[in-house]
Amino acid sequence: VQRSLQAMDSCDLALLVCAGGWDGHEKRLLQQLLDRQLPTIVVFNKSDCCPVDPQKRRQLQKQGLNVVETNALNRRGIDQLKEKIRQLAPPSSLIHPTIVGDLIQPGQLVVLVTPIDLEAPTGRLILPQVQTIRDVLDNDALCLMVKERELRLALDQLRHPPALVVTDSQAFLKVAADVPEQVAMTSFSILFARLKGDLCTFVRGARTIDQLRPGSRVLVAEACSHHVVGDDIGRVKIPRWLRQYVGGPLQFSHVQGQDFPEDLSGFDLVIHCGACTINRRQMHSRIARCQRAGVPITNYGLTIAYSLGIFERALQPFPDALAAYRQS
Amino acid sequence: VQRSLQAMDSCDLALLVCAGGWDGHEKRLLQQLLDRQLPTIVVFNKSDCCPVDPQKRRQLQKQGLNVVETNALNRRGIDQLKEKIRQLAPPSSLIHPTIVGDLIQPGQLVVLVTPIDLEAPTGRLILPQVQTIRDVLDNDALCLMVKERELRLALDQLRHPPALVVTDSQAFLKVAADVPEQVAMTSFSILFARLKGDLCTFVRGARTIDQLRPGSRVLVAEACSHHVVGDDIGRVKIPRWLRQYVGGPLQFSHVQGQDFPEDLSGFDLVIHCGACTINRRQMHSRIARCQRAGVPITNYGLTIAYSLGIFERALQPFPDALAAYRQS
Repeated sequence: VQRSLQAMDSCDLALLVCAGGWDGHEKRLLQQLLDRQLPTIVVFNKSDCCPVDPQKRRQLQKQGLNVVETNALNRRGIDQLKEKIRQLAPPSSLIHPTIVGDLIQPGQLVVLVTPIDLEAPTGRLILPQVQTIRDVLDNDALCLMVKERELRLALDQLRHPPALVVTDSQAFLKVAADVPEQVAMTSFSILFARLKGDLCTFVRGARTIDQLRPGSRVLVAEACSHHVVGDDIGRVKIPRWLRQYVGGPLQFSHVQGQDFPEDLSGFDLVIHCGACTINRRQMHSRIARCQRAGVPITNYGLTIAYSLGIFERALQPFPDALAAYRQS
Repeated sequence: VQRSLQAMDSCDLALLVCAGGWDGHEKRLLQQLLDRQLPTIVVFNKSDCCPVDPQKRRQLQKQGLNVVETNALNRRGIDQLKEKIRQLAPPSSLIHPTIVGDLIQPGQLVVLVTPIDLEAPTGRLILPQVQTIRDVLDNDALCLMVKERELRLALDQLRHPPALVVTDSQAFLKVAADVPEQVAMTSFSILFARLKGDLCTFVRGARTIDQLRPGSRVLVAEACSHHVVGDDIGRVKIPRWLRQYVGGPLQFSHVQGQDFPEDLSGFDLVIHCGACTINRRQMHSRIARCQRAGVPITNYGLTIAYSLGIFERALQPFPDALAAYRQS
């Protein structure tokens, strides 16, 4: 049941599947779905052997719910169910928002700086890099991949400066130094803050770093469950940069995967990863939970840019976020 | 049992796990492993409740087999087992051969041409592209990704010609036309022929395309089980190019995933995909099976290059393969 409730936070649409009967369990689940204002379809499956009480059906329909009877064995009603899903799915769930498409023109060149550290899977790339490359290509642009050490060499090979440089946040300082001032520069993590979360909210969250004092409580939340190795960014690097910025010890808590706490009271700041492995709805549920608890939330890339003193430069491609920064 | 036998073709090392007992089933499996000359460790698990007959143990050890007793529940013997695995794993299984590292120098630029077709997963890249990018970065080189339509534009942006252009085989003709003659050019599929299979064997296999006659039987084998959509390369494009080259109809058979046939007699040619989802050992088992049956084997990229008439150009980065071509 706990897992079902967690899953609701990442759903765009719910199918409440039952077999004829309708008792306390179904009632409670339905209430949870209605509380979350999730479009819901009640599916009475096994319609051959467990017929639905017509009165129950009418009652649910009166509540404004969509009811479909199916028989998964002989596929009766399945097409009707598919059609209902198509009708009820929120349009936002069918649109793939762009990562960099609104920041570049077709034919322009984007440089992606991708340090290869211990956490990168052997022989592969991490997900935000792959997704960003694909987004550049889908927008008819060109994508130059380099490690941070080869960045200057790469820029020297180009006839014209690139339209945009995106770096892994860990290489922010070196990249900011190597990229000419007039070239737009940001990080994968900031692009994902915008894609999965809400950049202006995260910018305001990062601003509260100035209010941290020695002893403040910071929650570092990571959406995936990668093995922590070496100089882990969430466990080692961000805590180190923040302690340096604040000038004293802080109390860090760490969560991974689905373990985002119900109770956020007592935290002074939540710092979330880029959220490449969870969806936009789930990230927004987490943001909403922080807002209800009155706890500011920001993300890895913004925290790093802030504590390294290159916040404005990293936000320069995003006028709205820059305005939110200046107003806060 | 069929699946266990298939799995043996892709193993570098076998653990034959049993619980005290040793009967006909274990004997038969062991014989299959010995036939394949696979380093094998016999693991007697559940050592708490199913003790091993000491005589059986000595007998296996006399056969030169490594025997370890473990108890997975309390982890007794697990460290000893790990150490045995480390000792017995063939060195080749621990080395990751390079995809392009021997073709380029640090600091050089490689262009990867990646058409985005229906078969590319939404928002992602296909595996050979990801692995090649990573290999370029691991070799301290720069990697420029473009779709085939933007290739000329991309080359115009560079101060110097790239060291190497790698294309998806489907865009071979357009890429060959857009890349200057003096720039080395090949395809992902040919790079993977070399990485996973044996490039010279595949080159000799491609040569036998000239011996195909209308009515010849061709097996198209794909290692993964991707959904076939639209103008599928193995189902539609390669058959079309080959028919055009041969000048008449051919009899095509298709297999996917693990379904590489035991009996290859009757085929005039086997055309294998790039094998990005299976390992080198498994690909070599398939090559060996073709050789035992006297059936030539080649791969997608080589077949396409051959039937499009750009075979020598696509092999130019590989002197050994070019020599094999000229000798055959």
